[in-house]
Amino acid sequence: MAKQKKAPRPRAVPPRGFRDYFGTDVSERSKMLREIADVYQLYGFEQLESSAIETVEALGKFLPDVDRPNEGVFAWLEEEDWLALRYDLTAPLARVYAQHRNELPNPYRRFAMGPVWRNEKPGPGRFRQFYQCDADTVGSASMAADAEICAMLSDTLERVGISRGDYIIRVNNRKVLNGVMEVAGVLDPLDPDRFTNERGIVLRAIDKLDRLGLEGVRQLLGEGRKDDSGDFTKGAGLGAGQAEIVMGFMQALGDTTVRTLDNLQALVAGSGVGETGVDELRQISDLVVAQGYETDRIMLDPSVVRGLGYYTGPVYEAELTFKIKDEKGRLRQFGSVAGGGRYDDLVKRFTGQEVPATGISIGVDRLLAALRMKGRVGQTAPGPVVITVMDRDRMSDYQSMAAELRAAGIRAEVYLGNPKNFGNQLKYADKRKSPIAIIEGDVEKAAGIVQIKDLILGAELAKKASLEEWKARPSQIESPRAELIEQVRKMLLAQALSE
Amino acid sequence: MAKQKKAPRPRAVPPRGFRDYFGTDVSERSKMLREIADVYQLYGFEQLESSAIETVEALGKFLPDVDRPNEGVFAWLEEEDWLALRYDLTAPLARVYAQHRNELPNPYRRFAMGPVWRNEKPGPGRFRQFYQCDADTVGSASMAADAEICAMLSDTLERVGISRGDYIIRVNNRKVLNGVMEVAGVLDPLDPDRFTNERGIVLRAIDKLDRLGLEGVRQLLGEGRKDDSGDFTKGAGLGAGQAEIVMGFMQALGDTTVRTLDNLQALVAGSGVGETGVDELRQISDLVVAQGYETDRIMLDPSVVRGLGYYTGPVYEAELTFKIKDEKGRLRQFGSVAGGGRYDDLVKRFTGQEVPATGISIGVDRLLAALRMKGRVGQTAPGPVVITVMDRDRMSDYQSMAAELRAAGIRAEVYLGNPKNFGNQLKYADKRKSPIAIIEGDVEKAAGIVQIKDLILGAELAKKASLEEWKARPSQIESPRAELIEQVRKMLLAQALSE
Repeated sequence: MAKQKKAPRPRAVPPRGFRDYFGTDVSERSKMLREIADVYQLYGFEQLESSAIETVEALGKFLPDVDRPNEGVFAWLEEEDWLALRYDLTAPLARVYAQHRNELPNPYRRFAMGPVWRNEKPGPGRFRQFYQCDADTVGSASMAADAEICAMLSDTLERVGISRGDYIIRVNNRKVLNGVMEVAGVLDPLDPDRFTNERGIVLRAIDKLDRLGLEGVRQLLGEGRKDDSGDFTKGAGLGAGQAEIVMGFMQALGDTTVRTLDNLQALVAGSGVGETGVDELRQISDLVVAQGYETDRIMLDPSVVRGLGYYTGPVYEAELTFKIKDEKGRLRQFGSVAGGGRYDDLVKRFTGQEVPATGISIGVDRLLAALRMKGRVGQTAPGPVVITVMDRDRMSDYQSMAAELRAAGIRAEVYLGNPKNFGNQLKYADKRKSPIAIIEGDVEKAAGIVQIKDLILGAELAKKASLEEWKARPSQIESPRAELIEQVRKMLLAQALSE
Repeated sequence: MAKQKKAPRPRAVPPRGFRDYFGTDVSERSKMLREIADVYQLYGFEQLESSAIETVEALGKFLPDVDRPNEGVFAWLEEEDWLALRYDLTAPLARVYAQHRNELPNPYRRFAMGPVWRNEKPGPGRFRQFYQCDADTVGSASMAADAEICAMLSDTLERVGISRGDYIIRVNNRKVLNGVMEVAGVLDPLDPDRFTNERGIVLRAIDKLDRLGLEGVRQLLGEGRKDDSGDFTKGAGLGAGQAEIVMGFMQALGDTTVRTLDNLQALVAGSGVGETGVDELRQISDLVVAQGYETDRIMLDPSVVRGLGYYTGPVYEAELTFKIKDEKGRLRQFGSVAGGGRYDDLVKRFTGQEVPATGISIGVDRLLAALRMKGRVGQTAPGPVVITVMDRDRMSDYQSMAAELRAAGIRAEVYLGNPKNFGNQLKYADKRKSPIAIIEGDVEKAAGIVQIKDLILGAELAKKASLEEWKARPSQIESPRAELIEQVRKMLLAQALSE
């Protein structure tokens, strides 16, 4: 040992952009995911846990450079293969479905929950490992699959603790926008590059409605817009009449679903793809209404743009509508916690066949944050009862007490540090958020009693109590040893009731 | 689209040594882990989920070569840092504890469950990603911490479904073997290299008792052993008298705990470290007995060797004692499903301080396999009720049925594939392991009824039924639409009862 050369001490930190989750951080998330899984299973979805590592070849999208694959993923060369950590749960679904399509039920309803990894610049609250929770139906082109996903998302939000009225699921359809553009005559679907580029500008302009207002968006659809600081953003270059048609799409929301559909129908009249899109929206709307989901839960909304660029038909977005304060103290809606839509090229890369698919992804961390804000989680996580050690030769007495408490379903632990300093034991109980400490010294042992200390009440009294209050509700009671369980139960109940 | 160059299709397979888990594979493991977590939490342990990726520097043990770090881990160079996937849950615990030791309660009881990754040659049933489930107490040198871990392991096994009598937790102590060696006078603790090398040979020899018998082990402790094929294995080179002392250790198990301790005490008399080891075993035994764990659950056993090389004091191993058939059809014990012990250099690499720690790791896949063999999981996983589609214009009728069934807590789904071929719908229901199919064509709709098809009974009758049986218990009933839920409930109940 003495001969060993002294190596520099390693730093005890995770890599940049990674973090650890402790105690209730983990258990609260687990509980929420369990509730989500319960709903998904009720809808006939089956869980899939694919491997965290895929070949870069199977993940696709990321072409290896000479030295290393593209940004965005964690990838490395392993013998002859480039391997990578999954960056989402959809790419692995594509690989699994292509691999097992002959054995899997068709259509295949699957859900998945677990960590994904992104090799991106970390920032405040932005980590390089985070949870996703997805549900997808693969192999069905029916709008019933989309309607079902929306209904399931609604049930899921209510199940985890978001009240009806505190959320809304908005549905739009990419085909309607394509139809609008076709009618406006500005975008040439036969020139895909130009189409994609200008569609991108149009989508980004629409997405800024909240922030820039109608006039700002109109400028971005036209030549461009100069902001307050004088910076100029180039626009999509639409003529005034053309821009007006796109503006009409954004403002097509009527006060009833029927009116919204009529407005859209009028905008896309004559466009095949546009009329298909409107018909799809109508089908989804009819299906969810037939299942009892009115517009207070699921509504059509032509202003939903997020993801329109990626998806091929219906898109959905779940927004929490209650207000929170942003970093500048202004009230704003909590915003999106889930989104998804239909995409039809899931397994084409592998098999050459187009397979229709539709699905959603829930932002696990955002939803959990919302539940914490609403007080739906994080309220009740009392620590264990701590049995203090007054005499280290009587550890077995203390362990027996712990065993009795656990047998009664009460979390309990014996202090296992150095027992010499009793103050340290109480400090420990405080760190453990213990509701109760048990004390049994030699005197108590001889008398067949234990001291039961109410740490929650004790902390309250220490803050503000008068002498009278101390006397009226003493924070420490003496109990016969034989009544330990009964008295602890009583005290825990009193604590729960006085919360 | 037509202009796109045709890239070769990627292979739809995971990397070699990785696999996917479907449906009940995932949910059964989740359920088992949840039950384990419940027990751990009852004992006051808190869950920790550390990041899957660590710096190679923090993981330690693996020194980077010129090109890449050592074998055994998946590692890659990321900007300036070598990063690696965790290969177990103990190395990350060391990093987390060193990083947060001032905020964490001390002692710190933590549990962790999740995948780990090993860059090893895959084999049948051996994967490069698998689950571990650990519980450790950091910061306590007390044998009460070890006793508690053994008691908790016992509770855990019973909680997940291993009956009392089907398992045993064996406890040994590394210090006792060191004492035995000191008394035998063969191994020089002042020459660490020689000590380590010969101790390794002795440990491996003892570990072969089951297979080679006493005489074989004696040979391996001495000059060496020639096996039936004539191959020679070099021995530890102990003299006959010295070997006899080590043999005594292996055979020190008495018919009571007191006798076992007496036997060990006699073997190590005069060795300080040996006597400390015997005293530690006595303390653990007293503590678990005081909590009600008799030798049918937790026993001292000097023949337990696994891990002795790694640990510094007590070691524990949980064995399932029921018999299974091995690949050659011979009956043998199921064997080990968990193990652990005390190790005292957990965070020394980071802080320079020795911190005592003790813990266990459960082999998640092995324990789950044992539960499957005992029929404790995997018995009851009925699929969802499948509502067939007779008329694709009435999807909303079918979705409403599904919604009603779900509201009653019954898993249900509408067939979302192409409904034209009814046979495909029933094949789908079969793949989904559906207990019941619902049929509502135009005729039924007009009459206000539905057909409810018992798919489990149907499959049975198809196999073996006589005409009389068909008539006595028809596998398809007609029910008023309004009584759908009631009739489905009744049928599910009948299926559950006739299992």
